[in-house]
Amino acid sequence: MSSTETPVHVLILAGGAGTRFWPASRAARPKQLLPLLGGEPLITATARRVLPLCARGGSDGWERIWIATGQHLVAPTRAALPEVSERRLLVEPAPRNTAPCIGWAAATIARDDPDAIVVVLPSDHHIADVPQFLEVLQAAVASAQGGAITTIGIRPTHPETGFGYIEAEETAGAGSAAPAEPAEPLNVLRFVEKPSRERAVEFVASGRFLWNAGMFIFRAGDMRAAIRAHLPALAEGLDEIDGAAALGAAEEAEAVLRVFPRLPAVSIDHGVMEHVAGLAVVPGDFGWSDVGSWQSAWELADKDERGNSAPAGSVLIDAQHNYLVDLRTRSGGAPDDRRVIALVGVEGLVVVETDDALLVVPRDRAQEVKHVVDALKAQGRGRHT
Amino acid sequence: MSSTETPVHVLILAGGAGTRFWPASRAARPKQLLPLLGGEPLITATARRVLPLCARGGSDGWERIWIATGQHLVAPTRAALPEVSERRLLVEPAPRNTAPCIGWAAATIARDDPDAIVVVLPSDHHIADVPQFLEVLQAAVASAQGGAITTIGIRPTHPETGFGYIEAEETAGAGSAAPAEPAEPLNVLRFVEKPSRERAVEFVASGRFLWNAGMFIFRAGDMRAAIRAHLPALAEGLDEIDGAAALGAAEEAEAVLRVFPRLPAVSIDHGVMEHVAGLAVVPGDFGWSDVGSWQSAWELADKDERGNSAPAGSVLIDAQHNYLVDLRTRSGGAPDDRRVIALVGVEGLVVVETDDALLVVPRDRAQEVKHVVDALKAQGRGRHT
Repeated sequence: MSSTETPVHVLILAGGAGTRFWPASRAARPKQLLPLLGGEPLITATARRVLPLCARGGSDGWERIWIATGQHLVAPTRAALPEVSERRLLVEPAPRNTAPCIGWAAATIARDDPDAIVVVLPSDHHIADVPQFLEVLQAAVASAQGGAITTIGIRPTHPETGFGYIEAEETAGAGSAAPAEPAEPLNVLRFVEKPSRERAVEFVASGRFLWNAGMFIFRAGDMRAAIRAHLPALAEGLDEIDGAAALGAAEEAEAVLRVFPRLPAVSIDHGVMEHVAGLAVVPGDFGWSDVGSWQSAWELADKDERGNSAPAGSVLIDAQHNYLVDLRTRSGGAPDDRRVIALVGVEGLVVVETDDALLVVPRDRAQEVKHVVDALKAQGRGRHT
Repeated sequence: MSSTETPVHVLILAGGAGTRFWPASRAARPKQLLPLLGGEPLITATARRVLPLCARGGSDGWERIWIATGQHLVAPTRAALPEVSERRLLVEPAPRNTAPCIGWAAATIARDDPDAIVVVLPSDHHIADVPQFLEVLQAAVASAQGGAITTIGIRPTHPETGFGYIEAEETAGAGSAAPAEPAEPLNVLRFVEKPSRERAVEFVASGRFLWNAGMFIFRAGDMRAAIRAHLPALAEGLDEIDGAAALGAAEEAEAVLRVFPRLPAVSIDHGVMEHVAGLAVVPGDFGWSDVGSWQSAWELADKDERGNSAPAGSVLIDAQHNYLVDLRTRSGGAPDDRRVIALVGVEGLVVVETDDALLVVPRDRAQEVKHVVDALKAQGRGRHT
């Protein structure tokens, strides 16, 4: 599907944790590993979605999917993505935010081909219109091939205060109900942190602001150069890893263990993007969601005719608009299909079961599960968080 | 405490199943074995409550507590009542309703002493005012010692249509707010099946009707005679068991296995009480409840200042008037205290967990859990019922 001869690699950022999906999300099972929207974990859907972009010749594309994750997540991540080879797992010895792992991936890929394109994607988002998404990514790849570090900006649907924004020089078609224009890159004026409600309303009204969805597209060599210009400490560390890699795989692994923990812990946004000149953004409108809460997961999940999303075999009597998630496992780790969940006469509830917790909360208050995590920590019951 | 020299035995009827406490109550774990109102199962509380009545001399009373139950319930029943010796368990080889097992107990006790008093009690009720209850039972024991088969009638608090009623010749003090009169037996005019709403209202207004709580007090020999008069087929079967018992314990056990399954399956109410002349009833007002639903169990359970009844360690955030029951077990069978149950922003819910089921229902619709049982049976999932 790729229209270019330049290879396209995808780096999926798969660390993180988060408390918004307690009790399903835990330190050892962050959101991307959860099958929130159906059969497969979000990270699996993320990788499958971009395979056509990575495929070339007779290859199916899996050899160009890279996963950056932490040591404690290697086993469940490999289980979610068995097609990804061990060589493509970038296991961070310590969490250092996004700049070091993106830099590490760029350096590793640049060794073979500095002109190779790298597409950086979060692992835990949902995209409804995959063809449109791939078209936007293709436009971003073309932009990156021209030498511009490029990002994707989501056309905002409401004045969200939970996201960062990107101000573009001009966003054609904003507010138009007409079919999407062919995706075209625009110049980035600035990155803006999560705004107040008032500013978010202005942003959306202006038509110039897009949501920052954490997607970045660049030539591997361009990112190395940008890091050298703006994060010299990171560049030095990456050089050290590069030098070791020239000696052999064992030396490289040793250097990663030694160097990584002292790399600057900084996000790619703060460390690089906010300082790079000539940044481009391709506006996108492809049904994007960061799946930020049980509420939004319910909105995206398949539902029956009464608006319930529930495991097969659940008994629902006069129950509507509920979201049932059963993550209990049998001893073997597979879902426990012996379980009966019965809801009678309830509406708009989120009910989540795991092996060691049960949550019941109205859907429209699902954001408040963070208070449960706080309460458990305060009680010294951190193993449940 | 007993004011008489005649020994008083208590027979606790502990078969049954029922669907109103699904998923907690199951074929193998009926209501009396559930710790619905706190730490101990209802049957354990039932036995402890009447010990003072059975105690005599240096004995603590346990040797006069008899339990009638089914083969499949022997193990959990013994676990709930370790003080009851195996000789006092009357294990019914087949369920034949209440008349055969009450007859069997009466015959067994009458062999030693036909004048011994037998108090028959359901195993799964709650009594708030135990001293008053014991006073009423003492009055009934005295009535039975005079030769009258005697029952206890609960003064109705509302026109309940779920209970049978007993019409008494006169019930002094009905509707009076004054302290209870000393308990006195009255003549029974008739037993009435569960009435319509309209009739129930009339019953309560009349002051002559009492709830039939399934409690019967009689001399063992009097019950044998009543059975001989009104259920001759049962009397013959009991004679056969008696004859075998004279030969030895093994012969007796063999006779029970052979005879019991062909005894007439009839309730003591229909088979005996409705036909006996000179029946007496002692009105009682001692905070009786048949604990008929999750709603009534919540009413009786200990609650926190916000009206929640929940296991220790539950996390309740802005949650009120909820009833949480966790009957999950660890592999060893003990309660699973590793579990976190979190309720956020919900009110008036019943949430029940067992090893293989979860129920969520508003408290005021808790009666509808029977529809879940029906649905599971219709789906061929009877093992969950």
